[in-house]
Amino acid sequence: MAEGYSALRNERVSAANGVDYAYRDTGGGADGVPLVLLQHFRGNLDNWDPALIDALAPARRVVTFDNAGVGGSSGTTPDTIEQMARDAIAFLTAMEIGHADLLGFSIGSFVAQQIALVRPAIVRRLILASSAPQGAAGMHGWAPEVIGAIGTPHTSPEAYLDVFFTQSAASRQAGQQALGRMYARTEDRDAVTTWATREAQYDAVCTWGIPHHALLQRVGALGMPVFVANGDSDPMILPHYSYLLAGLIPHAKIKIYPDAAHGFLFQHHAEFATDVQAFLNGPS
Amino acid sequence: MAEGYSALRNERVSAANGVDYAYRDTGGGADGVPLVLLQHFRGNLDNWDPALIDALAPARRVVTFDNAGVGGSSGTTPDTIEQMARDAIAFLTAMEIGHADLLGFSIGSFVAQQIALVRPAIVRRLILASSAPQGAAGMHGWAPEVIGAIGTPHTSPEAYLDVFFTQSAASRQAGQQALGRMYARTEDRDAVTTWATREAQYDAVCTWGIPHHALLQRVGALGMPVFVANGDSDPMILPHYSYLLAGLIPHAKIKIYPDAAHGFLFQHHAEFATDVQAFLNGPS
Repeated sequence: MAEGYSALRNERVSAANGVDYAYRDTGGGADGVPLVLLQHFRGNLDNWDPALIDALAPARRVVTFDNAGVGGSSGTTPDTIEQMARDAIAFLTAMEIGHADLLGFSIGSFVAQQIALVRPAIVRRLILASSAPQGAAGMHGWAPEVIGAIGTPHTSPEAYLDVFFTQSAASRQAGQQALGRMYARTEDRDAVTTWATREAQYDAVCTWGIPHHALLQRVGALGMPVFVANGDSDPMILPHYSYLLAGLIPHAKIKIYPDAAHGFLFQHHAEFATDVQAFLNGPS
Repeated sequence: MAEGYSALRNERVSAANGVDYAYRDTGGGADGVPLVLLQHFRGNLDNWDPALIDALAPARRVVTFDNAGVGGSSGTTPDTIEQMARDAIAFLTAMEIGHADLLGFSIGSFVAQQIALVRPAIVRRLILASSAPQGAAGMHGWAPEVIGAIGTPHTSPEAYLDVFFTQSAASRQAGQQALGRMYARTEDRDAVTTWATREAQYDAVCTWGIPHHALLQRVGALGMPVFVANGDSDPMILPHYSYLLAGLIPHAKIKIYPDAAHGFLFQHHAEFATDVQAFLNGPS
């Protein structure tokens, strides 16, 4: 019998941009500021590890959603981070969420940066999980072994594990467990993301990675508290770029999780949830 | 009876630029590549914690020196990091050191960066202790409480401890011990640095800190292995800038030492020496 995040119903909300967004909404908390999660490349509502959401939800409201064109949402996946940010703001507006904490993961962290730059008034605190600033040298597209693993038309659990977890026995076991939790839900699963979504998202990732040193200055404008987090062995977005973000953003906290890759926040779900709560409850 | 670094004689070497440089030379090692140390603001040969040098010297040759105009060296202290780098290269040339590992500390780390950019062929590996890249936002001069403590005509041990060590009992005790080791030498101490040196060095520090985002790109050219290190509570050069360096330099390793300030490498001298040896002996 599924419970927690795995048992949540898929909700829909119609936004002013004509998109019907699929989302899940859980938890609650005293301060009323929801934590809104922005998903990784090709991910839908089912690709959040339920263990992470269930560790976060007792203390605060947690909202996951499919951005325009992704999974169960209608519309078209755009090929720029800028438009993805506009689409996400449209979702927040439709949800009447005027103030939120954002947790962006991978491409979702690029979108979260953009939201915080375009509409800073929405974002109370910002968590950037496996992230990089626009224009940083050396991140134009993902490494061949990464895009070769998770960028193919039909992906496999093995390819997912190769990118999201390390080669250590402990990390592999954590990965198998995370996959087990994600696939425990058998009814009312989210619609799978399409090849068109994959193509558009990877265009956006490559565009974000076009080297442009001057653009590094953008994140210097992020005035809210920021928590930058990554796995020490992430092959998709190297921890190098987390250090860069922590050095460019005026008030950033950084943590690099050991023996972990892109899926560090699923592998270390309990520790990461504790760190997220401490950050969200911390001093301004 | 003094021994180790505290008992080393002061040497002098005449360089092609007309400067007679004061230095100390100790240790030895199989690979023949010396580790050359570049000192902090207002520091001379006696301001290296002997415990650190003595921990490094068994495994490799270690050379400390006064740059032009500083302490026992002749000449004039220049007011730019660029000229300090030229002066340091002149010292290395006079010493017939064509290949070295550099450990730059504070303003010495700025000079070390500049040497590695101007004369990369000299620098096998680079250690940047409490460092920052030229032009980074928010580091134009030191915080008022820092320059107010260690920038005065007559400094005190208390002011030194306030900048180089934290307020914790453990850090303060480590600071007292480091000062004790530095002052154990009573004969043949180095000449104290002058007010003219202080003025010129602080001009150079302020010039290095003039905000100029484009200059952050400079350290992207550092192709050698780099180890970036700092204390977690350094009030003089914030660890923020160590993250920035680690994110800008292509192949950097970073370590932030706990409960430590500007003098983290003296407080944690055994651990830091071990980390330095591992870095210098590590894979290219």
